[in-house]
Amino acid sequence: MTIRIGIMGYGNLGRGVECALKHNPDMKLTAVFTRRDPETVKILTEGVKIYRAEEAASMAGEIDVLILCGGSATDLPVQTPEYAKYFNVVDSFDTHAKIPEHFAAVDQAARESGHVAVISAGWDPGMFSLSRVYGEAVLPDGANYTFWGKGVSQGHSDAIRRIKGVKDARQYTIPVESALEAIRSGETPEFTTRQMHTRECFVVAEEGADKEAIEREIVTMPNYFADYDTTVHFISEEEMKRDHSKLPHGGFVLRSGRTGWELEHKHIIEYSLKLDSNPEFTSSVIAACARAAFRMKNEGQTGCKTILDIPPAYLSAKSGEELRAHCL
Amino acid sequence: MTIRIGIMGYGNLGRGVECALKHNPDMKLTAVFTRRDPETVKILTEGVKIYRAEEAASMAGEIDVLILCGGSATDLPVQTPEYAKYFNVVDSFDTHAKIPEHFAAVDQAARESGHVAVISAGWDPGMFSLSRVYGEAVLPDGANYTFWGKGVSQGHSDAIRRIKGVKDARQYTIPVESALEAIRSGETPEFTTRQMHTRECFVVAEEGADKEAIEREIVTMPNYFADYDTTVHFISEEEMKRDHSKLPHGGFVLRSGRTGWELEHKHIIEYSLKLDSNPEFTSSVIAACARAAFRMKNEGQTGCKTILDIPPAYLSAKSGEELRAHCL
Repeated sequence: MTIRIGIMGYGNLGRGVECALKHNPDMKLTAVFTRRDPETVKILTEGVKIYRAEEAASMAGEIDVLILCGGSATDLPVQTPEYAKYFNVVDSFDTHAKIPEHFAAVDQAARESGHVAVISAGWDPGMFSLSRVYGEAVLPDGANYTFWGKGVSQGHSDAIRRIKGVKDARQYTIPVESALEAIRSGETPEFTTRQMHTRECFVVAEEGADKEAIEREIVTMPNYFADYDTTVHFISEEEMKRDHSKLPHGGFVLRSGRTGWELEHKHIIEYSLKLDSNPEFTSSVIAACARAAFRMKNEGQTGCKTILDIPPAYLSAKSGEELRAHCL
Repeated sequence: MTIRIGIMGYGNLGRGVECALKHNPDMKLTAVFTRRDPETVKILTEGVKIYRAEEAASMAGEIDVLILCGGSATDLPVQTPEYAKYFNVVDSFDTHAKIPEHFAAVDQAARESGHVAVISAGWDPGMFSLSRVYGEAVLPDGANYTFWGKGVSQGHSDAIRRIKGVKDARQYTIPVESALEAIRSGETPEFTTRQMHTRECFVVAEEGADKEAIEREIVTMPNYFADYDTTVHFISEEEMKRDHSKLPHGGFVLRSGRTGWELEHKHIIEYSLKLDSNPEFTSSVIAACARAAFRMKNEGQTGCKTILDIPPAYLSAKSGEELRAHCL
């Protein structure tokens, strides 16, 4: 039985989900919902209709899982509990500090309506969370390290764009190679923020803007840049378009741990991602979680789940028999 | 509530489980069972008794999970279904080709008795299986690659020891670095066996043995060595003891996949292990699976499971709330 998927919100992420569905033959795109005028939205899949967001609830019977592709700041805290009343849902809520609060709101809505809601699907939170939890579970004596990059951070790029005199900006988060090497060699250092990542910024300034002032404002910006070694490059609009239009990302999760009666043996677990497209990889994780949500619902489960609650086999299109015979 | 663990079989693996339990305060070692004379077995944990294997069934009420530390060739195919009649059990059955058969036998026994049995816990099968399944689930268009090493292969070492004139032997499996690099660069090559791993053998020959004949017999041995580039070093007993008494291992699982409407974006997922002690790491995975078996049983589940069926959170000593707040 093909799993019928709806997409709520058609930006980078919604488009990524649409692409992922094309390559997962056990799922199909059934409807796209938008807050824009549906007439103005063009999607890639032929024969699929675009609806106004308000029409979603009335289509509950035609959609097995609704994927929420809004932002974590203002969209998802409202949308996920709301749509969990009508649908099994998946979101990619990624404000780490607010996950417990979001979980509680979504769990209540999903339990009351008898649906399954998977929140925080993606790679961090998501695949990286899995690595942190598996690493700690199998090596309880040890330390976890998470490095991001090299990749474009949307939040940091946006922060630069809000500076007066900045026309466009792209910020790359870059892990410090010597920090990675220290962990790989078996050390368990305690790093400062500055020792783990550097930040590289490419900025298109408006004509006549004070570049020194812009640079100063970037490198001293609290939370975003002040605690990092930050370099700023001013480039032209053409260079921005030519060299920085992609959204690569990735990173590393390492667990350094010890076993043995006197903890005499060292072990290093390393998980890394090298992604050409951050939104498309996130979307691919979301698609796999939609499959799991559908299965959990069919088993009679309800409530809010994260990827930590999902048996890995549920994410796979293969049956348990196939997995045991070919992947285990 | 502390989880009461029994260990069946006290070799490298049983000792590793004992060490793992010391560092997992929510579990405790309750009994060790052996086929040897209990008087001759010395364990590390004070105050824990050693029993004859035949006494195990009579202690079913005192043990929450029995960990089976026998070998996959002859012990576990008999032991796991047998003890699943009386206990929740965990084993590390690692004969990949026979997992479906073992699963079926254990599943029947565990369902009939109402217990949970986790089979094939360890790192391959185990953590590596997880990486293969997650990688394929989130990047369905792509290829999986598994490399082992650098590390000691017990099976290959044993095969050399059976050759006439060989007193002792240690075989290291070594991944071919250029093959790893090709995958990391985004290629999805099809490798021959020879292109992925080399084999390095350290051999202590008996006095007067024909070393050329031994080397020829090693490098031409079907299945074990004939398909690999194999090097053989003859060393003294002292060198063997000094340089090759440890059991390190590890390896790499890579998923190279593509996303996008026309599969235009590449992604590389890499999971690697660098282990000082193969048996102790395997034991640590087993201990986490024992925790999960206990929880699944308490939830009312029964039957045979693999790590692919276990929600990751069940492996962790932390609660769902703690995991969402700190690890997700």
